[in-house]
Amino acid sequence: MNENKRIIHVIGMGPGSDDMITKEAKDALDQSDVLIGYNVYLDLLRDNYGYKEMLSTPMKQEVERCRMCFEETIKGKRVSMVCSGDAGIYGMASIMFEISEEYEEEFEIKVIPGITAATSGAAVLGAPLNHDFCVISLSDLLTPWEKIEKRLRAAAEGDFAISIYNPSSKKRHDYLKRACEILMESIEDDRPCGYVKNIGREGTECKVCTLRELSVEEVDMFTTVFVGNSQTRIIDGKLVTPRGYKR
Amino acid sequence: MNENKRIIHVIGMGPGSDDMITKEAKDALDQSDVLIGYNVYLDLLRDNYGYKEMLSTPMKQEVERCRMCFEETIKGKRVSMVCSGDAGIYGMASIMFEISEEYEEEFEIKVIPGITAATSGAAVLGAPLNHDFCVISLSDLLTPWEKIEKRLRAAAEGDFAISIYNPSSKKRHDYLKRACEILMESIEDDRPCGYVKNIGREGTECKVCTLRELSVEEVDMFTTVFVGNSQTRIIDGKLVTPRGYKR
Repeated sequence: MNENKRIIHVIGMGPGSDDMITKEAKDALDQSDVLIGYNVYLDLLRDNYGYKEMLSTPMKQEVERCRMCFEETIKGKRVSMVCSGDAGIYGMASIMFEISEEYEEEFEIKVIPGITAATSGAAVLGAPLNHDFCVISLSDLLTPWEKIEKRLRAAAEGDFAISIYNPSSKKRHDYLKRACEILMESIEDDRPCGYVKNIGREGTECKVCTLRELSVEEVDMFTTVFVGNSQTRIIDGKLVTPRGYKR
Repeated sequence: MNENKRIIHVIGMGPGSDDMITKEAKDALDQSDVLIGYNVYLDLLRDNYGYKEMLSTPMKQEVERCRMCFEETIKGKRVSMVCSGDAGIYGMASIMFEISEEYEEEFEIKVIPGITAATSGAAVLGAPLNHDFCVISLSDLLTPWEKIEKRLRAAAEGDFAISIYNPSSKKRHDYLKRACEILMESIEDDRPCGYVKNIGREGTECKVCTLRELSVEEVDMFTTVFVGNSQTRIIDGKLVTPRGYKR
């Protein structure tokens, strides 16, 4: 380890509730002078860390948010970039490494994992991801929709259980319906599915249904969707994908 | 919520280190009379919970281990089934729901998520799963090898980043090599890859390499393997799969 490297933490906070964050993440937050992140996530920290300096940039200014981390670190501050869920799953970890290349200074970017919506949402529904699975985001802000379609088809072809992030937004209200239609090209329309809204936050809601029913459900950007594999069953209202031990 | 239901916790402990377990999981452990799990995982808890009753069954007796949970709960004890990583990712959550069907009594199985090796291992290597990804186990104890091969091909076809669990064991020393050969049918052999051994435990080791190099690496059952997607780069020795923000 190069002693001269300046350390920056990229922290996964989990779903948001204080009891689903790890001690490692808490310790890093405690030791930080500045917390940098998207406002919605910083707000989740104000109760416990409101006394700390907090900096943000609007959505779609992630590059500037990263540069903020490096600039504040160069000033000599201990900086943490905070992400919801896991920092390395649709979080800011990878772009922090990319932006670090712009600087002559050496930084050590320490990624601290957190509970991501695939596992926290799965726990609410039962055990939908208890065998091989895929995680796919329906957001086409940074990914061409054709690539998302290709991955949905590959996930169905491989008989993976699927966790879908960003299933909808104001501008993309019909994306989950379009995704379900692609999946139904090869998956039977009564495949057990489900979704969870506001995981680990106030107003957590969940529903277990079929793929056909899912295709017409109203979901929002705070919803995580789950599609079972060919073995997934509904047991006592829970979505359960067997690992195979009973065989 | 049916008040008559007996609650059983199925707890994901994370990689094993005390600072990567959530408060929710700790609280459930604290409130348990009996901790049931595979011995290797119970051993990780003896320092803090050695005063509690601990019950186990050998590997391949998972069904009996689950029945133990229900029997002890029926006796009036507060029972937790403990799993390493996340209880719902190759863990005991799904089989607990399945075995619950054998009983007339009503149980509420509460799954408590934990940090799984895909995210804790990714954090050690950098950010290899920072876009759509698949998680695939190479263990064919409960899954036909043909199905594993099919999923490897689908994952490559969909250009997913891939996290591989159970890449090897005494009886399956060449499985990672076989998996890499399947992936190299469609993925270039210099694709950035990596692996982490003993995540969050003593003797954590990691390596970043190419798919070709990975195919001849010695990995063990405590190793988690990562294969990048077509956009994955190595930045300052870290494995980084861009989300796309820089575009």
